[in-house]
Amino acid sequence: MALYQSGSSTTTVQNLRNAPSQGCVVGVDIGGTNLRLALADTSGSILGKWSTSTVGIREPGEIVRLIGAGVDTLLQQHTSNCGSATRADLLSIAAGAPGVTDTDSGIVIATSYLLGWRDVPLRDLLETEFSVPAFVDNDVNMAAFGEAQGGIAQGTANFVFLAIGTGVGAGIVLNGRLLRGDNWTAGEIGYMLVPGASIAPVERGKPGALEAIVGGEGIQSHWQSIWSENSTTLANEATATQIFDHALENNPLARAVLALSSRTLAYAIYNMALVLNCNLFVLGGSVGLHPALGDATRAILKEQSARVQPGVVPSSLGSEAQITGAIFRAIQIAKAQALSD
Amino acid sequence: MALYQSGSSTTTVQNLRNAPSQGCVVGVDIGGTNLRLALADTSGSILGKWSTSTVGIREPGEIVRLIGAGVDTLLQQHTSNCGSATRADLLSIAAGAPGVTDTDSGIVIATSYLLGWRDVPLRDLLETEFSVPAFVDNDVNMAAFGEAQGGIAQGTANFVFLAIGTGVGAGIVLNGRLLRGDNWTAGEIGYMLVPGASIAPVERGKPGALEAIVGGEGIQSHWQSIWSENSTTLANEATATQIFDHALENNPLARAVLALSSRTLAYAIYNMALVLNCNLFVLGGSVGLHPALGDATRAILKEQSARVQPGVVPSSLGSEAQITGAIFRAIQIAKAQALSD
Repeated sequence: MALYQSGSSTTTVQNLRNAPSQGCVVGVDIGGTNLRLALADTSGSILGKWSTSTVGIREPGEIVRLIGAGVDTLLQQHTSNCGSATRADLLSIAAGAPGVTDTDSGIVIATSYLLGWRDVPLRDLLETEFSVPAFVDNDVNMAAFGEAQGGIAQGTANFVFLAIGTGVGAGIVLNGRLLRGDNWTAGEIGYMLVPGASIAPVERGKPGALEAIVGGEGIQSHWQSIWSENSTTLANEATATQIFDHALENNPLARAVLALSSRTLAYAIYNMALVLNCNLFVLGGSVGLHPALGDATRAILKEQSARVQPGVVPSSLGSEAQITGAIFRAIQIAKAQALSD
Repeated sequence: MALYQSGSSTTTVQNLRNAPSQGCVVGVDIGGTNLRLALADTSGSILGKWSTSTVGIREPGEIVRLIGAGVDTLLQQHTSNCGSATRADLLSIAAGAPGVTDTDSGIVIATSYLLGWRDVPLRDLLETEFSVPAFVDNDVNMAAFGEAQGGIAQGTANFVFLAIGTGVGAGIVLNGRLLRGDNWTAGEIGYMLVPGASIAPVERGKPGALEAIVGGEGIQSHWQSIWSENSTTLANEATATQIFDHALENNPLARAVLALSSRTLAYAIYNMALVLNCNLFVLGGSVGLHPALGDATRAILKEQSARVQPGVVPSSLGSEAQITGAIFRAIQIAKAQALSD
């Protein structure tokens, strides 16, 4: 079941003093199609990783049972390295889920169609399963926390983490804290209205105006709408990152798609930079990490205004941002628990 | 020199306990064309108001001398009511200025062309003039503070105050605190890029894309561009609020201007509501307070999305929002001073 393991890799966590030196923590990345786990010690060194497909699995109890199986596998594997790890060695667990999440109550209020959750008490489910304190958050906010604690935004009071994959979302850190908003949806920018975006009201479950142009699905749709056999060797079903690779090879069709996506992303960043007066935007997600998108977006921002020139940089944690954030959250609550004992 | 006085009006200030019961405070509203003062007691009751024109006066020292003259006038007038008020009775002073302001250092970093200030140490100038603690802030932020403390946003953790006059600016309150940003320009939304707005780079000193449509100057320009003698009785030089009045009388030309302004404002509010997940927007400023603009903006937001439906309400303090905020700030620092003595 395990798709990848990297028990020998180590990631040292800064800024967390007083964590109990014994025991281990678990970080969880719940996606629409994959579930990823990492076991770490309380200094943040990764002891093991595990992942599995969640395709066809939607029921929260089932996901928690999968997490349980993965954690047991990781503990067992760790045993063979340096002693007898069991669930009794667990101090805490933190999980990111792809949906609106109330971090106070630990409830995932809603997720996309892939999971279709409504008001799932995920923190309680995890605490019942593992008998340790748990923390749950939206996946993009968890990744932003990862960047703040162990990534490129370390020590930056104000920044925005932009997750650009199939859709588009932002984790906004102001004065060192994640912005939550009135209903836990701060940073849900997929529906932002910028020049060139559709102003038609969007049906529930459909991509928003911004993500219809900047998100992976929107990029693929645009490609398919202008694709012709004679003008490219790339398939009609190409992915967003393949299209961007093709743009770097100077294919005119792919360059047109990149130009629209990057211009629209630049407008969204510009608007957020104005509202928040925030000078650092970290690009993450499979599409957001493509260097062609970052380069083109920076070029458009440069010509747009001398007044507003936010830095736009790729995530330094890449696809590990979310699980890194989860490990940091787990260590944070283990530390809080140790202080309160 | 005094243009208006209302020594008999009283505005009671809530939420400020432990303020010294003796003495009085001054709130100042520095505008591009007018200077307004209010003398208040430490419960927030207004003891007198004074204002004068600042047309042709740009030098900061000159403005501070005018403030001194106004305060002396108010103290003198107050003497005749209930005793011997002098500068010795002053506890503190707070002033809002129309520009980017560093509230930590008390420096007005930059103002519009009307004042043209650069790095003016306004707090120091006021403290030197009056020998009491002073506080300075951007005028829109000061008005937002007024709404939070004594207006329609009392008790609301997250809200945006939108000042729509000649230009457009926002004061953003998150978790009960004004958002400042990396360079004290949070909420400077006049340059926001929304559908229908110009995407051309804007020269320094020119109106931004959003305020070119939503601000008073932009509204007048739009009116003049479509005006013809045969289609309206209203003058070519009509003001924004006159044009909106005319729209309420169903003049097609004026309705077209209102439709564009309100649609553009609705998009800006929608974008901010997405980014911040903030459900309350307070409209202030001479143009923002016009009921036609608020009504039309609410109607567009209603049709735009069932998902994002922020409340859009007129300021309850109206043109007094900024000076009310200044009085609350002055009482706040008088209280802090009393506690530290």
